[in-house]
Amino acid sequence: MLRLGVDVGGTFIKAGVVDETYSILQKVSVPTGGDAGYEAVVKNIAYAAQLAADQAGRSVKDFASVGIGIPGLLNPRTGVVVSAPNLNGWHDVPFLDAIKKLLPVPVFVGNDANCAVVGETLAGAAKGCENVVMLTLGTGVGGGVITDGRLFVGGQGLGAELGHMVLAMEGETCGCGMHGCIEAYCSVTSLVKQTTRAMEADPASAMHEYAKKAGLVDGRTAFECSKMGDKSAIQVVETYCRYLANAIGSLATCFHPDTVLIGGGLSNQREYLMDKLNALLPRYVFAADVIGVPPILRASLGNDAGTIGAAYLDKM
Amino acid sequence: MLRLGVDVGGTFIKAGVVDETYSILQKVSVPTGGDAGYEAVVKNIAYAAQLAADQAGRSVKDFASVGIGIPGLLNPRTGVVVSAPNLNGWHDVPFLDAIKKLLPVPVFVGNDANCAVVGETLAGAAKGCENVVMLTLGTGVGGGVITDGRLFVGGQGLGAELGHMVLAMEGETCGCGMHGCIEAYCSVTSLVKQTTRAMEADPASAMHEYAKKAGLVDGRTAFECSKMGDKSAIQVVETYCRYLANAIGSLATCFHPDTVLIGGGLSNQREYLMDKLNALLPRYVFAADVIGVPPILRASLGNDAGTIGAAYLDKM
Repeated sequence: MLRLGVDVGGTFIKAGVVDETYSILQKVSVPTGGDAGYEAVVKNIAYAAQLAADQAGRSVKDFASVGIGIPGLLNPRTGVVVSAPNLNGWHDVPFLDAIKKLLPVPVFVGNDANCAVVGETLAGAAKGCENVVMLTLGTGVGGGVITDGRLFVGGQGLGAELGHMVLAMEGETCGCGMHGCIEAYCSVTSLVKQTTRAMEADPASAMHEYAKKAGLVDGRTAFECSKMGDKSAIQVVETYCRYLANAIGSLATCFHPDTVLIGGGLSNQREYLMDKLNALLPRYVFAADVIGVPPILRASLGNDAGTIGAAYLDKM
Repeated sequence: MLRLGVDVGGTFIKAGVVDETYSILQKVSVPTGGDAGYEAVVKNIAYAAQLAADQAGRSVKDFASVGIGIPGLLNPRTGVVVSAPNLNGWHDVPFLDAIKKLLPVPVFVGNDANCAVVGETLAGAAKGCENVVMLTLGTGVGGGVITDGRLFVGGQGLGAELGHMVLAMEGETCGCGMHGCIEAYCSVTSLVKQTTRAMEADPASAMHEYAKKAGLVDGRTAFECSKMGDKSAIQVVETYCRYLANAIGSLATCFHPDTVLIGGGLSNQREYLMDKLNALLPRYVFAADVIGVPPILRASLGNDAGTIGAAYLDKM
């Protein structure tokens, strides 16, 4: 039976019709409309699901369920969203109760990073794995974990905030207000900061020319200039990869996954990034010489992971 | 029905008869005998179980099961001990298969720190909690996690090595060979190092006199002198508590436990330690202002936690 998966972002709500082979048959996207407040967003989410069903020539009641990924802290059992800064500051809202009233089939909710790891484990790069850690590197660092074939969410579903675990005690200030979080070193936002600092220190770096042509310094600046042999760019990339490999090693020491997945924009660096991370990883995993280290792979479903994972949230 | 719990240490094997209320009715202790090799230790473990049964006027076959806690990395399903440095370097030994041949009832095996958290959750300071993180502060830092009422062990049971997760990237060298592990900052061994450094820097510190009387610098030196108002000792304790609170905060961000337990020798500092940790914790937990922080409590069963937890390993 077909399912509906909805991936709620700060700007757009994407909804998809997902079949039993985890293929997306139909996709739609509608504006989130966060400015209009919580109730408006809830309506827009229901509308996105209806629109996707509609485009597939059906109505929502023809589907087995609707799964919804939310960019925030939420308890998947009660469906209360404790905090969602990207949705104009939802705070302790009974989201599941509200959305259920608008949809005539069973509804499941989860954190968006958790939906992504479910999607990748069911249908993507970690297909068939029982233990997976996934980091999504973007503006922030999202994390998702599958342990023993099930989605790991911590107590009340409020754990697994991997991006805000410590990497460097008393280190860089993180967007969350704490210091030394994984996110403060491994997000694309942080990579851009590291790149900018290196550019300031080296006026002769090729990164200046590259950024000028691109119109901005972004996650590609250091990586692309590193490939061209620019010394300062090489240093930025090497340091960044050491940070990220250390973070991954610590998570591997905790979860002992079969596979680690990297998603988000930076994963477009493909082998160039993965090869470096895989080479560094053994030095950051406890007892790596006796228990080995997991391969670090690029997530393969891109933005679809969240939709597919949302549709199958109740399966993991 | 009664169960047998066995806690295997580097020096002694402790075995106990545990009843349905998680009370230990009978306790015995025999030398581990690691020097005589793996097979000898396996026999000693079986002997300890038989001796405990004997002293209770029964034989092993009268018990529901035997649970065994091992100080090392092991897969609780296959019973293969991958590595156990404290048992004279067991390496990839089929322990469960071997011990099963010597005992006529179902046998379960687990990591010793995991047994401790099971014991404390069933019968100790975390009784009734569904989500618990426990750190045992001793020579090293042992870790155990209960998530959703079940023992969390990571993939193949080889995860949850909390003491070797990162606290300070590229920081102090850890006994494991990596850098910046929680253990490298929060173990008693590390506290002693921090104390010694502070003593070297302050020849007038009361810690010199205290250590002289005690005959050594140990985990108590800085704590006791801090209580007496010694400035350098106060600084050591404050710094140590900051390290430990940051480690706990990161683990709380991952697991969102109801309760955090501190075990091991240092937990004898009771309120003096716990009050400081509880006061510091909110600054190290992600979104603490919206989701709160768990209380940090002293583990209450001491050495018995391992025996009780071993006996009831299969319950969690």
